[in-house]
Amino acid sequence: MGNGIIEKLEDVTPTVLRAMGATDNARLRTVMEAFVRHLHAFAREVKLTEAEYDLGIDFLNRIGQATHASHNEGILFADAVGFSTLVCLLNNGNAGATETAAALLGPFWRANSPKTENGGTIVRSPTPGPELFVTCEVVDAAGKPLAGVEVDVWQSSPVGLYENQDDTQADMNLRGKFTTDAAGRFAFRSVKPAGYPVPTDGPVGDMLRAQNRHPYRPAHIHFLGFKPGHKTLITQVFVDDDEHLESDVVFGVTRALIGDYRQHDAGEPPAPGVRAPWYTLNYRFAMEAGEAILPKPPIQ
Amino acid sequence: MGNGIIEKLEDVTPTVLRAMGATDNARLRTVMEAFVRHLHAFAREVKLTEAEYDLGIDFLNRIGQATHASHNEGILFADAVGFSTLVCLLNNGNAGATETAAALLGPFWRANSPKTENGGTIVRSPTPGPELFVTCEVVDAAGKPLAGVEVDVWQSSPVGLYENQDDTQADMNLRGKFTTDAAGRFAFRSVKPAGYPVPTDGPVGDMLRAQNRHPYRPAHIHFLGFKPGHKTLITQVFVDDDEHLESDVVFGVTRALIGDYRQHDAGEPPAPGVRAPWYTLNYRFAMEAGEAILPKPPIQ
Repeated sequence: MGNGIIEKLEDVTPTVLRAMGATDNARLRTVMEAFVRHLHAFAREVKLTEAEYDLGIDFLNRIGQATHASHNEGILFADAVGFSTLVCLLNNGNAGATETAAALLGPFWRANSPKTENGGTIVRSPTPGPELFVTCEVVDAAGKPLAGVEVDVWQSSPVGLYENQDDTQADMNLRGKFTTDAAGRFAFRSVKPAGYPVPTDGPVGDMLRAQNRHPYRPAHIHFLGFKPGHKTLITQVFVDDDEHLESDVVFGVTRALIGDYRQHDAGEPPAPGVRAPWYTLNYRFAMEAGEAILPKPPIQ
Repeated sequence: MGNGIIEKLEDVTPTVLRAMGATDNARLRTVMEAFVRHLHAFAREVKLTEAEYDLGIDFLNRIGQATHASHNEGILFADAVGFSTLVCLLNNGNAGATETAAALLGPFWRANSPKTENGGTIVRSPTPGPELFVTCEVVDAAGKPLAGVEVDVWQSSPVGLYENQDDTQADMNLRGKFTTDAAGRFAFRSVKPAGYPVPTDGPVGDMLRAQNRHPYRPAHIHFLGFKPGHKTLITQVFVDDDEHLESDVVFGVTRALIGDYRQHDAGEPPAPGVRAPWYTLNYRFAMEAGEAILPKPPIQ
């Protein structure tokens, strides 16, 4: 099974592709061959030096070493180079041809968020900040309401921390799982989320600093909609007054995902004891037809 | 500092490139922009699915997690997809235009190998196997002998293990550092190395199995030549009767690096007490002009 002996620079790529030619899984062969061609083309284009190779390998190893049960540096890296959003758009909205409701999953989704009654609150421990009342509708591609959709919701607190990053919050604070009613609706009570910096103590932080990029994500609420027969909807709805909407460090903001987080300074509050200002958000999600596959939770 | 809001698939790559445009280090900007363009082109070409993305991120994280003081999975991955050899050829032999004496470093080089007198042995603990007598000459690009070159030598044993992988070998067995004499020569006594499988208990092993690739490297001796004013020569000289010469798992074999490991069945042995068959290797290394930079040792 000889692939040939390398005589010159031009031989390297075809020799590697021959070595990978016996891959049983045809799709894996296609993906890895394309990966090798593009990786080699990158090195050739920039004439990567040996010192840069060393630095790159060290960066590669540090990504896995910075990953643990509550942090996924690999996803953060993919996010920070636009790869996650690219893959998201490739697989949603007719392969990017039409605007999509989908957005990158991000590193903070947890499986088994608490089932919460429609209209209930996801505030599970004292969480200061503006109160928020969210009402949502889930429809299919034809605009028909979808009942029985399981919707996971998760968000950061008004200081910009998820519960697993913050000892002052209860486990599963600001996380919940809802089911749409016969009209395709679900609603919940929460607090207005804040933007936050992605973790910058790993190699991705080094990259952002070297690139003079700020580490902030604009404030948003995550939604994951699951119903057999429909493509799992993974998305985020952004707060429209956030200063980082046009410079999200992970490139997650699309026009359609900027929500109308409306401030209310007076009038009848939506629940007893609510003091002005409070916020409301009303949003409509469309789910495409397809297979209902859950992603792998990035953290535990 | 807005980079723009993403409206469609085509917007992703230019938005990421704008975000990276403020990088102070011009070379880093060039390298990362090319990396992003090629990485995105790869995803677009194969229309990478979300499940494949998950698998890829997991693979990425596992590379760093499999790396430790005596093993570098990142280098192994780069080796196994031909990236190390490509970078080597890009930086040696007039950027690959002419055949080069250079080869990939591999993951087993250690700093501080023992200084050994010219003609001495690198066998530091009982090591069964055919005896080998190596004589080398180091010349410059014009063929003039180079005196005072520090040459690191390291190799596997006749069973295919480096000393740090094998409890039966003494620390630094089959490693040594020599200095060329006035005629540019150095010589040492050793044992004939054997081929060996690269470690396959990490993600790279999973990849090789999925690709139906064997994990073997053809037998070789590593050389690293260092002299100020000359480009550090990193190379390997392969055993010419090895069955894996044409299918080296890490693509390190070039025609010029196949040595003449000559078997001697009779005649005057090169040292007292040597029994037939013994082997000799005579090899001539050319060093290019350039900067003497040592690589980062992959292991301790």
